[in-house]
Amino acid sequence: MTLTLDLNSDMGEGFGPWKMGDDAALLDVITSANIACGFHAGDPDVMARTMRMAIEKGVGIGAHPGFDDLRGFGRRRLSRTPEELRNLVAYQLGAAEAMARAVGGKVRHLKLHGALSNMASEDEEMARVCYDAALSVNPDLVIMVLAGTAQQRAMQALGGTWAGEIFADRAYNDDATLVDRSLPGAVLHEADVAAPRILSMLREGAIIAESGARIEAKIDTCCLHSDTPEAVEMARALRSLLEGEGVALKRL
Amino acid sequence: MTLTLDLNSDMGEGFGPWKMGDDAALLDVITSANIACGFHAGDPDVMARTMRMAIEKGVGIGAHPGFDDLRGFGRRRLSRTPEELRNLVAYQLGAAEAMARAVGGKVRHLKLHGALSNMASEDEEMARVCYDAALSVNPDLVIMVLAGTAQQRAMQALGGTWAGEIFADRAYNDDATLVDRSLPGAVLHEADVAAPRILSMLREGAIIAESGARIEAKIDTCCLHSDTPEAVEMARALRSLLEGEGVALKRL
Amino acid sequence: MTLTLDLNSDMGEGFGPWKMGDDAALLDVITSANIACGFHAGDPDVMARTMRMAIEKGVGIGAHPGFDDLRGFGRRRLSRTPEELRNLVAYQLGAAEAMARAVGGKVRHLKLHGALSNMASEDEEMARVCYDAALSVNPDLVIMVLAGTAQQRAMQALGGTWAGEIFADRAYNDDATLVDRSLPGAVLHEADVAAPRILSMLREGAIIAESGARIEAKIDTCCLHSDTPEAVEMARALRSLLEGEGVALKRL
Amino acid sequence: MTLTLDLNSDMGEGFGPWKMGDDAALLDVITSANIACGFHAGDPDVMARTMRMAIEKGVGIGAHPGFDDLRGFGRRRLSRTPEELRNLVAYQLGAAEAMARAVGGKVRHLKLHGALSNMASEDEEMARVCYDAALSVNPDLVIMVLAGTAQQRAMQALGGTWAGEIFADRAYNDDATLVDRSLPGAVLHEADVAAPRILSMLREGAIIAESGARIEAKIDTCCLHSDTPEAVEMARALRSLLEGEGVALKRL
Repeated sequence: MTLTLDLNSDMGEGFGPWKMGDDAALLDVITSANIACGFHAGDPDVMARTMRMAIEKGVGIGAHPGFDDLRGFGRRRLSRTPEELRNLVAYQLGAAEAMARAVGGKVRHLKLHGALSNMASEDEEMARVCYDAALSVNPDLVIMVLAGTAQQRAMQALGGTWAGEIFADRAYNDDATLVDRSLPGAVLHEADVAAPRILSMLREGAIIAESGARIEAKIDTCCLHSDTPEAVEMARALRSLLEGEGVALKRL
Repeated sequence: MTLTLDLNSDMGEGFGPWKMGDDAALLDVITSANIACGFHAGDPDVMARTMRMAIEKGVGIGAHPGFDDLRGFGRRRLSRTPEELRNLVAYQLGAAEAMARAVGGKVRHLKLHGALSNMASEDEEMARVCYDAALSVNPDLVIMVLAGTAQQRAMQALGGTWAGEIFADRAYNDDATLVDRSLPGAVLHEADVAAPRILSMLREGAIIAESGARIEAKIDTCCLHSDTPEAVEMARALRSLLEGEGVALKRL
Repeated sequence: MTLTLDLNSDMGEGFGPWKMGDDAALLDVITSANIACGFHAGDPDVMARTMRMAIEKGVGIGAHPGFDDLRGFGRRRLSRTPEELRNLVAYQLGAAEAMARAVGGKVRHLKLHGALSNMASEDEEMARVCYDAALSVNPDLVIMVLAGTAQQRAMQALGGTWAGEIFADRAYNDDATLVDRSLPGAVLHEADVAAPRILSMLREGAIIAESGARIEAKIDTCCLHSDTPEAVEMARALRSLLEGEGVALKRL
Repeated sequence: MTLTLDLNSDMGEGFGPWKMGDDAALLDVITSANIACGFHAGDPDVMARTMRMAIEKGVGIGAHPGFDDLRGFGRRRLSRTPEELRNLVAYQLGAAEAMARAVGGKVRHLKLHGALSNMASEDEEMARVCYDAALSVNPDLVIMVLAGTAQQRAMQALGGTWAGEIFADRAYNDDATLVDRSLPGAVLHEADVAAPRILSMLREGAIIAESGARIEAKIDTCCLHSDTPEAVEMARALRSLLEGEGVALKRL
């Protein structure tokens, strides 16, 4: 049986005159692009350019809504009511869908960004509110959830289509949360360390924690970082190693 | 034959803690609401609240995109490339469509705001770019154009569905432009002056200029201002006078 | 001995096209104006207009910095590092000082706004960081602190000039915090209830809690709200009652 | 007689998570830094970091106000009233002065940014309004003007201290305006072409146009670009060539 995997990355994270990451190069490696929607990064012009590139390269387009915190890049935790969360997600998703249509494409998936994602991975009700808002706008959307977290439980309860996501370069704790970045071994910098780990997870259908513990999980997509100088090189090496092992890399 | 007319007004022009106009009261009078999309006014929460009220009162929902100039309320002329205009309109329309879907409604029409509208009323190519972007997002949209201007010519060339708009309270020049606000008689403050003028225009199928000149025009909707203290009273009086004359007030 | 008191109010809380409160009317009543600095409300034009009015009416000008959260009006708690707090306060104070100089005035005091003030009233270290930043920009500034809170303790430790503030219309708990708004009696709506309470506090040099408990406090200024419809009437009535009792109302 | 020259560059043009240019490296080369003030780029944290670096390296700090147009990086022409221009400049200058004081420094000069500068270089009245606002905030400021333009004439009329600026890498027309970027030879990419040109201008006390025409001008400072990949290398090479010719590089 062929193993299949989607490779996703955050894209379109510039704003006005500012760039972030080498989107053009990464779009040759990944199969799904999570595109910022203008609240934590991105603006309509950046969105259009990024979506056009994704379409040219056959990469799936996703909406990547975040908190309305440009200076904080959506990485700071903010307190919002459920109603505000609903509106925050619906607005950004709608904007992304229209931008995609205007350039001849289509939003296929949604992934929460930054602190919004972190908070939703710990709080099933918050995840549910965000995903329900998204599905009320587009019921055919694939929701990308952090495998094994409250995000996944929210989608299992809601009943829509979801894809389970793991990180290519992060070690996991026994409860499927990420090992704190400040600890040794938390971040994997070598593709030849990361690739075998991803392969084992795919083969076993489970997140494999640093301790060796297995947490059953549907693994559909793997997140590659886009915002470090080595991002492109790491992504290419990973892709090549996974393909060498016979993994079919396909968008959701 | 019954004359029919849509009454439209700009709505949802608050932002965060700030209010503008008495939307709740005006929504009892008008039949179509042009809802700000977050760039010159409005935010996702204001949009959701305003759309919910419009739905409850059976008022048609429209997207009302403007320049990204919150401090200037979209009233300052800005220079944008055609590509930027396309993205500006598509983004805001998409956001509005999603917000409408999320609260159980639907965007039926689009009207440009402020300086964006003024510029497009003088520049057919600019109007065409904006409307083409809107129709690429939603081909079923009714485009509200300032009757007799470059906006109308742009829609006649594009070939989509459009509604011709006149102002309830403004006098017209012989070329269908508005008499400058600084001139005497440019702004009508009395409903019993405005109503007969609207009636004549409807009956004759023409804009009637201050000079008495007639400019043939399809008149489908009449704009009521929402941002002055007397707005609600004027709107109520106008509605009552028009109904008294047998005009059927219906949303587009 | 004559009792003296400063009456302060938040001012300049419009933004672009939006207004808040009736600053012109309140400036006839108060003696010190806390002027928003552009981060939670206000913009350079609103600041200039408000400061000019304050100067004309002999009202003291204060900088009123808040979190950079326009949509939330600075009322939402945000997490910021001490370094970020320093920069946030220094930037806004400097902007206010320059605007005041440009219109022929001078910033005399500083008062924290909204959530920034609330958090600083509970966290002495946070208050200290904010006030130290302000004094590093202008050591002659009078810092307005919520009497009896961590704000006051921060200034006592820092050693600069400060003024103790009470609220005209709020009931106090025994620890000098405000009674929760949701509880009965928490907010005083009648000037003839509020005035005697203010007078007792002034005469006794103490905050008098709802329970009757006394918390020794230096009381220099009393905050009048500006953002409710009844604000001006309440302010006028209070001023008149206090003057009737011989209190000298003077800016800091 | 020793020729002296100031080398200036735009700095602190990041925003939130986004960087622009290699400020740390350029600060080793230049003698005056024009620091963005938060309206077209920069934020309080970026300003504080950049000013601290400038102080450490003995580089003069300047305020670099621009239009309030973050997405357009202050490079788009905007229409503002004289009153709005005054407030725009005063606000940003004040913010910069306070940030400088808070980190132990001092704003020594002011230079207009982007479209604000371009417009003021063509419109003496606009330049006068901006500079008058700046001097009303701080009369000791050195105003950096584009040599030979309406900016210079405005300062000559106002009577304050000013420094004449030339561009290191641009060719001049006979009227002291810059040769359009789209024309061949408009931009100099080689330090060994630019350096001799700067030297001649310094020695002759005149701008030397492409045609060879001389326009008498007080030349005090030379602008080095900071926002291209080759900026640092070009700056270092220029500095070295100028020092090799005995020019004393000193901040204003």
